[in-house]
Amino acid sequence: MATTVFVAREADAGEPRVAASLETVKRMKGLGFDVLLERGAGEGSRIPDAAFEEAGAELVEAKDAGRADVVLKVRRPSAAEMQAYKSGALVIALMNPFDNDAAIAALAKAGVTAFSMELLPRITRAQSMDVLSSQANLAGYQAVIEAASEFDRAMPMMMTAAGTVPAARVFVMGAGVAGLQAIATARRLGGSVSASDVRPAAKEQVASLGAKFVAVEDEEFRQAETAGGYAREMSKEYQEKQAELIAEHVAKQDMVITTALIPGRPAPKLVSRAMLKSMKPGSVAVDLAVERGGNIEGSEPGKVVDVEGVRVVGYTNMAGRIATSASVLYAKNLFTFLEALIDKETKEIKLDPEDQIVKATMLTRDGKVVHENFQSAAKAE
Amino acid sequence: MATTVFVAREADAGEPRVAASLETVKRMKGLGFDVLLERGAGEGSRIPDAAFEEAGAELVEAKDAGRADVVLKVRRPSAAEMQAYKSGALVIALMNPFDNDAAIAALAKAGVTAFSMELLPRITRAQSMDVLSSQANLAGYQAVIEAASEFDRAMPMMMTAAGTVPAARVFVMGAGVAGLQAIATARRLGGSVSASDVRPAAKEQVASLGAKFVAVEDEEFRQAETAGGYAREMSKEYQEKQAELIAEHVAKQDMVITTALIPGRPAPKLVSRAMLKSMKPGSVAVDLAVERGGNIEGSEPGKVVDVEGVRVVGYTNMAGRIATSASVLYAKNLFTFLEALIDKETKEIKLDPEDQIVKATMLTRDGKVVHENFQSAAKAE
Repeated sequence: MATTVFVAREADAGEPRVAASLETVKRMKGLGFDVLLERGAGEGSRIPDAAFEEAGAELVEAKDAGRADVVLKVRRPSAAEMQAYKSGALVIALMNPFDNDAAIAALAKAGVTAFSMELLPRITRAQSMDVLSSQANLAGYQAVIEAASEFDRAMPMMMTAAGTVPAARVFVMGAGVAGLQAIATARRLGGSVSASDVRPAAKEQVASLGAKFVAVEDEEFRQAETAGGYAREMSKEYQEKQAELIAEHVAKQDMVITTALIPGRPAPKLVSRAMLKSMKPGSVAVDLAVERGGNIEGSEPGKVVDVEGVRVVGYTNMAGRIATSASVLYAKNLFTFLEALIDKETKEIKLDPEDQIVKATMLTRDGKVVHENFQSAAKAE
Repeated sequence: MATTVFVAREADAGEPRVAASLETVKRMKGLGFDVLLERGAGEGSRIPDAAFEEAGAELVEAKDAGRADVVLKVRRPSAAEMQAYKSGALVIALMNPFDNDAAIAALAKAGVTAFSMELLPRITRAQSMDVLSSQANLAGYQAVIEAASEFDRAMPMMMTAAGTVPAARVFVMGAGVAGLQAIATARRLGGSVSASDVRPAAKEQVASLGAKFVAVEDEEFRQAETAGGYAREMSKEYQEKQAELIAEHVAKQDMVITTALIPGRPAPKLVSRAMLKSMKPGSVAVDLAVERGGNIEGSEPGKVVDVEGVRVVGYTNMAGRIATSASVLYAKNLFTFLEALIDKETKEIKLDPEDQIVKATMLTRDGKVVHENFQSAAKAE
């Protein structure tokens, strides 16, 4: 019997993304899967039901999830949603597992085999499944679009008959995937861009995008720079000098975009009220870490607020604000993940608990919390 | 006695711009003028009163306009505002004179010498005063920012580990100042950009910005192209062929930005409902002509509406949505205009009614409508 996949319509009103695209529906059909798609699943991403149907999906209701061997979602299903699921069904989503023991226990209790896409290992084979990376990339782009939209001035230098409008000064804090895309987008728009990162080795990447790296470049920095990768933590003295330099630098910026996230921990505070106050009236700040407590003092989830004369953008789910692209990439990530679970010979899904990717992402199975890092949730069962 | 200039706080809540900047206040002071600035005038453009004061302006109330020889405004003053004005005061603003006979008559009745900045002649000397051009430039930029913000996809092509997001297809209709800046901005953001214009001679400018010119390039087109400038109207047959080509082209676009305005006449309808319907779901259209009746069927002033599955952006005062830059350039335009009215010897304002710029822009003087093109308003007095 063919494997049946169910693509859910997200229950959360704040989640416009969907876990399948026209392309992945076609490709799942190509693998011989039956694809059930909950009516309206693509609405938030502007993919009409009719288009999904044409791609080969059968349009169904939420209760039909019970027919599925695999459930594809963006967000972790609620207990109510899981009531419809078949026992033993694979559920693949962003499970938001940190500090959520009760929710993980609920997944176990529902008897589903839950995979948390956030937990993918950083290995080459998993790159094309890396949802954090694909979504952060779009979030970094959208952060700049939102900032430009809030900004009362033009981003590029404009030379007109009436005089010259100077380029906006944009400072990106954190040069990970989101930060690098924010740098690239702000540069595209003609901004004068600088960036910082706790890793001195990030300097080269930042410079390669045409932005200035802001750091105290002393002997300690140079040593850490050549060490590369995730370097050891810098000395307390260095951190203090760096903080002072950053504060001086922020005062001269028109836009600050913060992207500093530490997996499983609250976001570091990077921009204080005093630093916001030092900026020109009408400046804009975007806090991409607002959902994890925020990098900017005063930022509020889901809102644009005025803090000390600076418009602080705290939209949650920034990737969701560019839902069509976000869904296309997310769906592709999930498809690649799913494809990797297929046995080459039987063409059916076969879980290998020793596989590095399965091991890293599988939270629950057969009614139990199986992930070694979440055994505290096993006790919450 | 020194000439006194009054900078008004705009009464219209939909007008965030201001007719002076810190730079122009300083320069007016440099000319020996006294500058009165109505408290809060810069608020919408995020220029604090204190900054204006530091630049040399005296902060005053609306009633103090009566002390001024020159009033600088963005929009035409209301009868109530003019009650405070000195008889014979020069009032320089966007007077929106077309089809507004009663308003022009009211300016005459108030006894002010009113200048309509929209009426500047297209001569070299007036280029640096050209408010329509400076504001259209910013409106063209902002149209793309708003479109990108409404759009559910990324503008640039993005090559990621999860696959490629294609570049957005952007079509700009009308290659005047706003259209050319929209093309440039959409190109900056990585869009795949095309454009059209009724003037075949626009092809070269469009191409120079890296965009594709969409036109039926037959013999008639080639002749008109080399003729250059404001060519004669194309034949009815040509217009039909061109309309068909445009309709086919629009169906393939992700974004359409229309910028077609004809001074003193309603905006031409360029995009029909049927054309919107032919676009993909989630496409975006921006109508920069919405205040003059609109280029897009179904666009609504001040709103973003869904028409046949396309988000149609109809923000009025698009330049005002980027108020700080818009005010800086507008203020500079007005300063240059004012400076041109100064007598070289006496250093005081002296109107020469025969001067080409004065003649083109002066609507009323000594209680009369003096502009030859608005004599119908004289009858409305």
